[in-house]
Amino acid sequence: MSASTSQNQRIAVIGLGSMGFGMATSLKRAGHVVTGCDVSADAVARFVTEGGAGAKTPAEAAKGADIVVSVVVNAAQTETILFGKDGVAETMAKDSVFLSSATMDPDVARRLAKQLEATGRHYLDAPISGGAQRAAQGELTILASGSPAAFEKARPALDAMAAKLYELGDAAGQGAAFKMINQLLAGVHIAAASEAIAFAAKQGLDIRKVYEVITASAGNSWMFENRMPHVLDGDYTPRSAVEIFVKDLGIIQDMARNARFPVPVSAAALQMFLMTAASGMGRDDDASVARMYARVTGVKLPGDK
Amino acid sequence: MSASTSQNQRIAVIGLGSMGFGMATSLKRAGHVVTGCDVSADAVARFVTEGGAGAKTPAEAAKGADIVVSVVVNAAQTETILFGKDGVAETMAKDSVFLSSATMDPDVARRLAKQLEATGRHYLDAPISGGAQRAAQGELTILASGSPAAFEKARPALDAMAAKLYELGDAAGQGAAFKMINQLLAGVHIAAASEAIAFAAKQGLDIRKVYEVITASAGNSWMFENRMPHVLDGDYTPRSAVEIFVKDLGIIQDMARNARFPVPVSAAALQMFLMTAASGMGRDDDASVARMYARVTGVKLPGDK
Repeated sequence: MSASTSQNQRIAVIGLGSMGFGMATSLKRAGHVVTGCDVSADAVARFVTEGGAGAKTPAEAAKGADIVVSVVVNAAQTETILFGKDGVAETMAKDSVFLSSATMDPDVARRLAKQLEATGRHYLDAPISGGAQRAAQGELTILASGSPAAFEKARPALDAMAAKLYELGDAAGQGAAFKMINQLLAGVHIAAASEAIAFAAKQGLDIRKVYEVITASAGNSWMFENRMPHVLDGDYTPRSAVEIFVKDLGIIQDMARNARFPVPVSAAALQMFLMTAASGMGRDDDASVARMYARVTGVKLPGDK
Repeated sequence: MSASTSQNQRIAVIGLGSMGFGMATSLKRAGHVVTGCDVSADAVARFVTEGGAGAKTPAEAAKGADIVVSVVVNAAQTETILFGKDGVAETMAKDSVFLSSATMDPDVARRLAKQLEATGRHYLDAPISGGAQRAAQGELTILASGSPAAFEKARPALDAMAAKLYELGDAAGQGAAFKMINQLLAGVHIAAASEAIAFAAKQGLDIRKVYEVITASAGNSWMFENRMPHVLDGDYTPRSAVEIFVKDLGIIQDMARNARFPVPVSAAALQMFLMTAASGMGRDDDASVARMYARVTGVKLPGDK
């Protein structure tokens, strides 16, 4: 086993939300020395209770780290963690690697990578998918791209966090681009599932039967199968919030407009997420798009008054 | 075994296209006496070669039949087969059943059923899904609704043709409504898959890798997985043509507008099928929507000049 795959790496995890917390515990379980940091002191305290170390700022968490894993929501937060006040770029060890998991525009990923690499550190563009449970089990899917050196340095963390690692290219941006294609489809599929199930209810169909028929038919999607049970149960506790797809389909629109590439289907889907957010459900589960269709059209779905 | 599930039923199959031919052979294989009819004399001749009987008109095929299976494209053709010149309604035995498999507006299914039932015959609303291969194997999925008598009379044919039979209600219209919900989703998913894969190509991503990543991710759909190999291979030989979804998403728009129910995502998808048909690809495989995106945006996909 080479040095780069050895255990007992010093790893900082910045962002201890539902994904980051699970990733941090997976890293600890694999034998690494993990320091967590979050804007929520409670989250840090909880990680310390589980045997991790805590830090007050990203800079402090990253001090001397071999690997910094950033698990935040977007490009702006990632940039702040890297180069903002108390950022990690100045305190991470030279030749260490920054592993960025936020979904973002590939151009931004390329810019952040270039800026960090100029300081003698590596950048791995590594968006994740799989949800909180798989994060906690160390079984995420990671869509990664970066220099061979970035991959080599990041390998111990990747091994501990991922069940499936796609190596998608030798520069930052490719990982982000693949993730955005996934988000385009996922967002459209949630909006379509919502449109279909609310329209089925409008026609008086039994939506539990609709779920049974569609999941066994050519109209099925991963998102239909995963999200529509929230509608059947009338449970909009956020597993993933409406605002996530307002953001991600928004990035798609920006990327596509800049590339002079029309994307009318995802444009229509984005409007439905915006309508749902505008109705006050932005922080609810993204299956709330179905609730928005139902409320607008006077259709009754389970759990709605 | 009751009389209604006995073999050696006299069955007419009207429409010997890729689906109807397979259904007719499945019925024959199950021991029934099957007469086929099609506007194409060649199709009828081919069925006779395989040991079936042939008829020149629907009326002739249906003469004295216990069951008439209609496998045509739309509501207009179904109505002609029932009540047009040389239609079956006058020649089918009293108390026999008409099994209608075309995808159509539920209101039209209800109207045709009412009109046929007034003559003392039964109507089973029975849209199908599964493709030509499963039709030939007697392993279709059938989304059926109708009176208990219609189900009882149709049972021998259903048993021979379907691997999975959904019994969705005791009146015509419900089967059609479930099928339309499936078509809404299927159509949006093809358009979204096309938008995504062409946009991925525009960004310079390896679309074979995109296929590998997406089919293992939350952005997957049955249609993405089934149709995008046609794009990867540059093979637009029609397994199912663009015009099918021009029709089916069109029915969705009509139904939704009549119900005062907005469906902006499927409306956007329909426009993409229309653009593809307008570009001269209406009779090509429905994955041609990706080719349309690529041509408009100057992106090169496999097999395109």
